[in-house]
Amino acid sequence: MDIFEKCFSYTTVKEAIKEGFYPFFIPLSENEGTEVEYRGHRLIMCGSNNYLGLTTHPKVREAAIEAIRRFGTSCTGSRFLNGTLEMHEQLEAELAEWVGKPAALTFSTGMQVNLGTVSALVGRDDIVILDKDDHASIVDGARLGYGKIQRFRHNDMEHLECVLKGLPDNAGKLIVVDGLFSMEGDLAPLDEMTVIAKKYNARLMVDDAHGMGVNGGGHGTAWQFGVTDQVDLIMSTFSKSFASLGGFVAGDADVIDYVKHHARALIFSASMPPANTAAALAALDVMRQEPDLAARVNANAEKIRNGLKSLGFNTGRSVTPVVPVIIGDDQLTFLTWKSLFEEGVFVNPVISPAVAPGHQLLRTSYMATHTDEQLDKVLGIFEKVGKQVGLI
Amino acid sequence: MDIFEKCFSYTTVKEAIKEGFYPFFIPLSENEGTEVEYRGHRLIMCGSNNYLGLTTHPKVREAAIEAIRRFGTSCTGSRFLNGTLEMHEQLEAELAEWVGKPAALTFSTGMQVNLGTVSALVGRDDIVILDKDDHASIVDGARLGYGKIQRFRHNDMEHLECVLKGLPDNAGKLIVVDGLFSMEGDLAPLDEMTVIAKKYNARLMVDDAHGMGVNGGGHGTAWQFGVTDQVDLIMSTFSKSFASLGGFVAGDADVIDYVKHHARALIFSASMPPANTAAALAALDVMRQEPDLAARVNANAEKIRNGLKSLGFNTGRSVTPVVPVIIGDDQLTFLTWKSLFEEGVFVNPVISPAVAPGHQLLRTSYMATHTDEQLDKVLGIFEKVGKQVGLI
Repeated sequence: MDIFEKCFSYTTVKEAIKEGFYPFFIPLSENEGTEVEYRGHRLIMCGSNNYLGLTTHPKVREAAIEAIRRFGTSCTGSRFLNGTLEMHEQLEAELAEWVGKPAALTFSTGMQVNLGTVSALVGRDDIVILDKDDHASIVDGARLGYGKIQRFRHNDMEHLECVLKGLPDNAGKLIVVDGLFSMEGDLAPLDEMTVIAKKYNARLMVDDAHGMGVNGGGHGTAWQFGVTDQVDLIMSTFSKSFASLGGFVAGDADVIDYVKHHARALIFSASMPPANTAAALAALDVMRQEPDLAARVNANAEKIRNGLKSLGFNTGRSVTPVVPVIIGDDQLTFLTWKSLFEEGVFVNPVISPAVAPGHQLLRTSYMATHTDEQLDKVLGIFEKVGKQVGLI
Repeated sequence: MDIFEKCFSYTTVKEAIKEGFYPFFIPLSENEGTEVEYRGHRLIMCGSNNYLGLTTHPKVREAAIEAIRRFGTSCTGSRFLNGTLEMHEQLEAELAEWVGKPAALTFSTGMQVNLGTVSALVGRDDIVILDKDDHASIVDGARLGYGKIQRFRHNDMEHLECVLKGLPDNAGKLIVVDGLFSMEGDLAPLDEMTVIAKKYNARLMVDDAHGMGVNGGGHGTAWQFGVTDQVDLIMSTFSKSFASLGGFVAGDADVIDYVKHHARALIFSASMPPANTAAALAALDVMRQEPDLAARVNANAEKIRNGLKSLGFNTGRSVTPVVPVIIGDDQLTFLTWKSLFEEGVFVNPVISPAVAPGHQLLRTSYMATHTDEQLDKVLGIFEKVGKQVGLI
């Protein structure tokens, strides 16, 4: 049996391309933040994670350029061996302060934060408890650990409590949830969850990839709920509000030190390059200097959410800059995506298995730097397309 | 039971720091390629993976800076959704040509190439066969797959054949090996291995993280052995010779397309930022323009290897720019590392479990840009320190 047989018989993509409905891996020729270009076609970007619009901020660009001038383009080694710069430690210290924790540790991608941290902490006799909508990197981190995996229904605190009740007292327990769920834009109820975690002697880790920079005045979802001290570990990525690539986990110094010396995704992977590190540092500085950015992205999202709702679209349970338009059918989702794309709006189609059948949606997301004019244009196009395809 | 208990009782690092023998996560204040600085102390870097010295090459720096000017500091999204630039596809096309395969696919880290590719290909009824010295990211990729894992003794072709003989005919089989083993600097015998793989209907994937840029005139280890067509998948990273962060896998177009649509480490992780992508592209261009770089790094390594050997050091089975100095004892390895560091040579101490007991070593590695003067100085310091600690 040839292990590649599954590849030769995989035709889904070829068929989608033939039918003109292939919406993935679209190669952009220009990307200026709120607007992008695909083969000369200009689009308003409503499908990025560039929530604060900092990828093109002059201070962020200049810091990254300066780092390349000073340190070159790569550290060519793991943090563990030859790849640590003082800059990495500075970023860790500033992030710890920003999220309100004693210590932080950076990784080269956000995915690797979850892979490394969760697998390092969840040992053979431990149990990791996940929300069913948790990000793939949390699930894979749990699978790389040697403990057991338990799931609870999305944001269902009764079910979480029921699961915890059934676990043995003598097992170590780690709950891991997204702070802001990236597909439907809802928040984990961290206020209730911290109480439940404590009751069952479980530790709580929040993946705030999408909430950091956006919630709690930029300090994140735990901050917004006022439960920073009760959340044990806070992680986030640099590829969203921080305008870079990488991520970090913050928490108690002993725990961070343990992760630092046990996370394979840290030890066996090259460190963040100078430019990525400097960009994240500069983005953090801009967040401190321009505290209104977090308010602006939320205001922009609210404008769109209200606009879409009054047009008759279903934006589900969104309360954040991630605003889904729930469609509930694969074919109609692709058709709507295509019409929006042709009219000049870039959004992401999300179908099963990424979301449950009936929840097929267009993921739209907004930026602090979107102008009112751009947002009005987006709403206008949504109205036109929504009517065309019979959604409203 | 508190899942963090293991962290609170972890004291190894604190003890090493107290005793003055903690050689990891050393924060550098300057890094100019062949020389670095730690708290004002200047060292010759003999512990990087910057084999061609391209992190500070003017063309590479300039390309990265220009990409930041044009596209900003991040794509803030997955290749799958909003994070693809034409530049990513250009890099993929050029890499495929460089390694001699029809197609290639880039990931944001080299680790994620292995995680994503191996786990996507090795399904429930498949078997992945690994060399016992394979890199951690291959092992973790295999663990994320749903198939069975088999191991064979390092570079032992008889044992590989024996393992393959025992496997069922109807299972898909993928052998994954390092091309150049990063700790001891030896090569996988790809000439023999391709024959064996074919005999047992197994596919062969080579992780050429350390061999690409260095072996086969820069085209990699499979090229050097003249077996590019018989090796089914070639992967490498950008954080070594390519002076960036990221990586790629190259092979048959159908296989690459399958991986592109099934690798979670690609789909659920942000894409390579513009600067990282441009740096890798520029590094590839320099490799094409300056074909003597690969020869130079090998010549530098040979000079050092011969020098160390005639001083009486044990450089094991190294035939590449990775030159281990085998010591065989934890304490003596740390002591030698510390003396070399104080004298101005940066190398990496490697103890068990990273290498088998008795194989504890200093990993040293060389660059095309090391000058003869630097290399002579390094040999002089090795001689002084080796005598001091009683190694020679």
